[in-house]
Amino acid sequence: MIIVMTKDATQEQIQGIVKWIEERECRAHLSQGEERTIVGIIGNNRPLEQEPIERLDGVERVVPILAPYKLASRDMQPAPTHIRIGDITVGDRQIMVIAGPCAVESREQIIEIAHAVKEAGAVGLRGGAFKPRTSPYSFQGMGLAGLELLAEARQETGLPVVTEVMAVDQVSLVAQYADVLQIGARNMQNFNLLCAVGKINRPVLLKRGLMNTMEELLMSAEYVLSCGNPNVILCERGIRTFETYTRNTFDVNAIPALKARTHLPIMADPSHATGHWEYVEPTALAAAAAGADGLMIEVHSHPEKAVSDGTQSLKPERFAELMKRLRAVAEAVDRTL
Amino acid sequence: MIIVMTKDATQEQIQGIVKWIEERECRAHLSQGEERTIVGIIGNNRPLEQEPIERLDGVERVVPILAPYKLASRDMQPAPTHIRIGDITVGDRQIMVIAGPCAVESREQIIEIAHAVKEAGAVGLRGGAFKPRTSPYSFQGMGLAGLELLAEARQETGLPVVTEVMAVDQVSLVAQYADVLQIGARNMQNFNLLCAVGKINRPVLLKRGLMNTMEELLMSAEYVLSCGNPNVILCERGIRTFETYTRNTFDVNAIPALKARTHLPIMADPSHATGHWEYVEPTALAAAAAGADGLMIEVHSHPEKAVSDGTQSLKPERFAELMKRLRAVAEAVDRTL
Amino acid sequence: MIIVMTKDATQEQIQGIVKWIEERECRAHLSQGEERTIVGIIGNNRPLEQEPIERLDGVERVVPILAPYKLASRDMQPAPTHIRIGDITVGDRQIMVIAGPCAVESREQIIEIAHAVKEAGAVGLRGGAFKPRTSPYSFQGMGLAGLELLAEARQETGLPVVTEVMAVDQVSLVAQYADVLQIGARNMQNFNLLCAVGKINRPVLLKRGLMNTMEELLMSAEYVLSCGNPNVILCERGIRTFETYTRNTFDVNAIPALKARTHLPIMADPSHATGHWEYVEPTALAAAAAGADGLMIEVHSHPEKAVSDGTQSLKPERFAELMKRLRAVAEAVDRTL
Amino acid sequence: MIIVMTKDATQEQIQGIVKWIEERECRAHLSQGEERTIVGIIGNNRPLEQEPIERLDGVERVVPILAPYKLASRDMQPAPTHIRIGDITVGDRQIMVIAGPCAVESREQIIEIAHAVKEAGAVGLRGGAFKPRTSPYSFQGMGLAGLELLAEARQETGLPVVTEVMAVDQVSLVAQYADVLQIGARNMQNFNLLCAVGKINRPVLLKRGLMNTMEELLMSAEYVLSCGNPNVILCERGIRTFETYTRNTFDVNAIPALKARTHLPIMADPSHATGHWEYVEPTALAAAAAGADGLMIEVHSHPEKAVSDGTQSLKPERFAELMKRLRAVAEAVDRTL
Repeated sequence: MIIVMTKDATQEQIQGIVKWIEERECRAHLSQGEERTIVGIIGNNRPLEQEPIERLDGVERVVPILAPYKLASRDMQPAPTHIRIGDITVGDRQIMVIAGPCAVESREQIIEIAHAVKEAGAVGLRGGAFKPRTSPYSFQGMGLAGLELLAEARQETGLPVVTEVMAVDQVSLVAQYADVLQIGARNMQNFNLLCAVGKINRPVLLKRGLMNTMEELLMSAEYVLSCGNPNVILCERGIRTFETYTRNTFDVNAIPALKARTHLPIMADPSHATGHWEYVEPTALAAAAAGADGLMIEVHSHPEKAVSDGTQSLKPERFAELMKRLRAVAEAVDRTL
Repeated sequence: MIIVMTKDATQEQIQGIVKWIEERECRAHLSQGEERTIVGIIGNNRPLEQEPIERLDGVERVVPILAPYKLASRDMQPAPTHIRIGDITVGDRQIMVIAGPCAVESREQIIEIAHAVKEAGAVGLRGGAFKPRTSPYSFQGMGLAGLELLAEARQETGLPVVTEVMAVDQVSLVAQYADVLQIGARNMQNFNLLCAVGKINRPVLLKRGLMNTMEELLMSAEYVLSCGNPNVILCERGIRTFETYTRNTFDVNAIPALKARTHLPIMADPSHATGHWEYVEPTALAAAAAGADGLMIEVHSHPEKAVSDGTQSLKPERFAELMKRLRAVAEAVDRTL
Repeated sequence: MIIVMTKDATQEQIQGIVKWIEERECRAHLSQGEERTIVGIIGNNRPLEQEPIERLDGVERVVPILAPYKLASRDMQPAPTHIRIGDITVGDRQIMVIAGPCAVESREQIIEIAHAVKEAGAVGLRGGAFKPRTSPYSFQGMGLAGLELLAEARQETGLPVVTEVMAVDQVSLVAQYADVLQIGARNMQNFNLLCAVGKINRPVLLKRGLMNTMEELLMSAEYVLSCGNPNVILCERGIRTFETYTRNTFDVNAIPALKARTHLPIMADPSHATGHWEYVEPTALAAAAAGADGLMIEVHSHPEKAVSDGTQSLKPERFAELMKRLRAVAEAVDRTL
Repeated sequence: MIIVMTKDATQEQIQGIVKWIEERECRAHLSQGEERTIVGIIGNNRPLEQEPIERLDGVERVVPILAPYKLASRDMQPAPTHIRIGDITVGDRQIMVIAGPCAVESREQIIEIAHAVKEAGAVGLRGGAFKPRTSPYSFQGMGLAGLELLAEARQETGLPVVTEVMAVDQVSLVAQYADVLQIGARNMQNFNLLCAVGKINRPVLLKRGLMNTMEELLMSAEYVLSCGNPNVILCERGIRTFETYTRNTFDVNAIPALKARTHLPIMADPSHATGHWEYVEPTALAAAAAGADGLMIEVHSHPEKAVSDGTQSLKPERFAELMKRLRAVAEAVDRTL
């Protein structure tokens, strides 16, 4: 950490900062420039980052030098994390495709879709039983009955199941049914929930909040990791910007920019990232080309009747088409499906 | 709701939409323009807004006509909602000022600050016992002990207490101690939590998420209202933009724009909205001038030692100064403090 | 266009609107809903969109139905526009790769880079002679001397030249040297300049402003088209968001979303869209996979000495690597390089 | 400037950086931390900020310490700049109110409005003769005829005139008629234009771009100042965010945040910042309360017939009302009107 003193900071103020640093068992290192004096803090100074140093006399601003996340960082672990889900390994050469409806709606619906996506080559099944909805008047999910249907679909198809958990008191229940627990975008900074899933033995799919920085995403991963669960998959699902032609803006930059900083696998969700089924294929291919370790795609046999997200769901035949092209793009970048 | 057909929609497709509408017990109203046919839906069509009409054949897009919130709307209740907290009424002529530290840190700290803000004219005490923090390595709040200290500060000063509740399982506990339950910005769309505070008998201070539109804020208020609690105070606390000189961008427009749409009172939090103590006074005055029904301001006797938000906290003497000018501005816009 | 009346609009106000519409030689079409009356305008109502209808008595809001651009629209011209540049055709199967330095710095520099990018497979040369810079203290480009060097590089390599024009009084000069005139992001809404390049006979590469919606980009293209120049290439180069790990956020969604609306070709500039050379390859591949008609990539033989944008420039050998992978991705999506 | 070396930077790389710095006639100052080595550059290092230091071997990132603007900075000139316009002084105690229509439409219109705003207390007249419009099909302004009408309105009322200049070749013409040259938001980074107005002897009103940071605004002011014109007034007019209930988001924080950094006066434009006439009064009062040195407000006698911006224009009687309240708020913060 570096402390930049104000232009007219006095020697007394500078000495005050040095003393403050030394009281915290670090060393100060002064650098007297032509316009500003800079004080470097040497030693374990991460804990000091929480302190309001900018309120000390003569301080203009504070510049952190190290990233605030540790366990999630490549500094800590240079090699990529591999996570086993069913028969596959996320974070390795294979691009994991998880597909399924936004919400579980009925036994017939989920079983039919599960078979269809498996046949097209998906290796995981998604489907929401607990649904966070902007409006209290929207369908809120089937709850426990939905979880049971997901388990049934897994038994029929062998596909591992990814489903969202919205609250601390649902964690143990959802963990009984799901192979991967999803933390939704709106809960990315629900810190109690992050700790709760950090204490169980199930991979966690952590979606980026729609207006959260990559650094905040890494800090939320750090919550899960520091609570004891090393199996976290990050997921870019579009961020909120001023653009209105699409539901969100798919931040494809996040794939290489996160990979440069963390060893955790990165997935992409082109369905939420665009909000329109016509744009799902091009952006899914883009994600694969950019190095995503997996894709999460909404598929519905009758999107015109879907209780949620019908606008962005692919029909099974379109999804099968997409998988063909995805396979070609995966090969072009030395990956497999 | 209005359905815009594609340029080359066939008569058959238009009739298909009409039939679809009539099956849902509404009436269709066709308007044949030169370039597009438009189908209006007449009758109770709010439930239809959840359906993926854009996936029906020949549909280009759907335009909602009515606001998606009802109970929160001025259509429903033109007169402003008044909420009693202690001896005062929020939503009436008085601008309610709530002040206190970001977090309760110790008995001495909270009692000292409570006395100071009361003396300066504050009518409520804020202070966090449960703290949502971006980093798992930051101070997470004193929990129950913090709630007890808040209650003690109330007893000493008579100031009603506003404090945050972060999770469903904390609601009944926090409600035993707090006069107003705060839902923090990161929990604005924690729908389970919104329902939980909707079922108890305590006013709720609902902060706008840093990534949320005003409409989403009203929808979150709708969750609380529709679960049975009519006493919701909205709070603008800054949104996230591209600007980096300030922590957030205080959306002062939200004060009149929300008042035009809802009968609920609107507060402002200039401390979080700016992130710098030097900017708190000008923006607090701005909020009052723009018609805010209340202000929430962070005050700390020793901001340079605060465990959180020291950078944006005012010292008691600065807060007292601010209150003087605030009184003058309040009078200039026909309000009181 | 549709006019939504206020909840309590009177019959007199509704009749006032009808009269207002009829005075403008359109017809009004009333639709009486349960909560609102809606008035559709039938006839050529685009000119009315400029009028402040929301100020008429009893009007709540106005909803445009048609897109505000015409010449740029697929409604007007369903087939893609093909633009000849040198020997190639943009907008057809080939993905056009234009590469070169941010700025022309010297004869030696531009000639060396031109040869290198040609050898790697680029079909056009980029390089700025007039440079828009945030700071008045930064290098502002070589001007005319830079244009002459670009022409020399073209003569040596046969590569057509793309270079930026910043002001109306530079247009004829730049057009003497350049094969394609680039309008930079900061000038996307410099309407005088758009008209000026609309009046000459040279293809225009129109970069999306970092703060502009896709609709505004199409409206700016409409300026050029309506001034008489049909050869406009759109270029997505990253938009500004709250994210700080990258210079801009590459809006890859824009590729399919623009293609759905316009017949004009769409290029992508992954160098500006990311701001870091390490992220250029993954996002360039992403753009190709998403359907971009071309790519514009910054290449510099000695990026550590570049006078501008060194951080985001590829060395020639990295660019040659990128071209190999790009070729594979292009084939995977049925395109060529 | 500070250079942060990578975690595994070698001694050789560190020495390479030191040598690089010394070749540029600065001194290097090393600070060896536990996890990173930091190299401070001592001496006149602003010119080095343009160089791509991040491309040098072993460098992780570069942290600028000093602000990139100089002439605009309070470091350079602590006392506020006062600018004379007609009989008044901007930047002193008086809050300057400039009012008038978006565009000059006719002799009758501008004269009528000029009298009305003067009577209500405005001290300057605004009105556009050259209008930047998103659509090529919108009214583009009366041009020279509009300038002549503005001059006539000044003669009749004595009000100095503020009007926009859109292009370099309009500067000398507009300067013959206008008392203050306005640079519009879309031209904030039209650097040729900034230099052109920097070379004439007229105050410049520089509007913040709708997606430009405050730092970029200060850099654009720096262009004007460094070209020789010291009389620059900054104007906050709303920025673009994800919010859609208002046309822009009025960044009221910018008033104190800019004042902390620059000696230049700051105005606010609540008409563009909100886009709705109903919100103009509350936000105008907010701007004054926050310390704005002036306000620019759109007024039109018949907003329902205005050729542009009718939705956000006040009628003269509403403007007169606003002026009354503004006077009260100005007094509450020790200013005058």
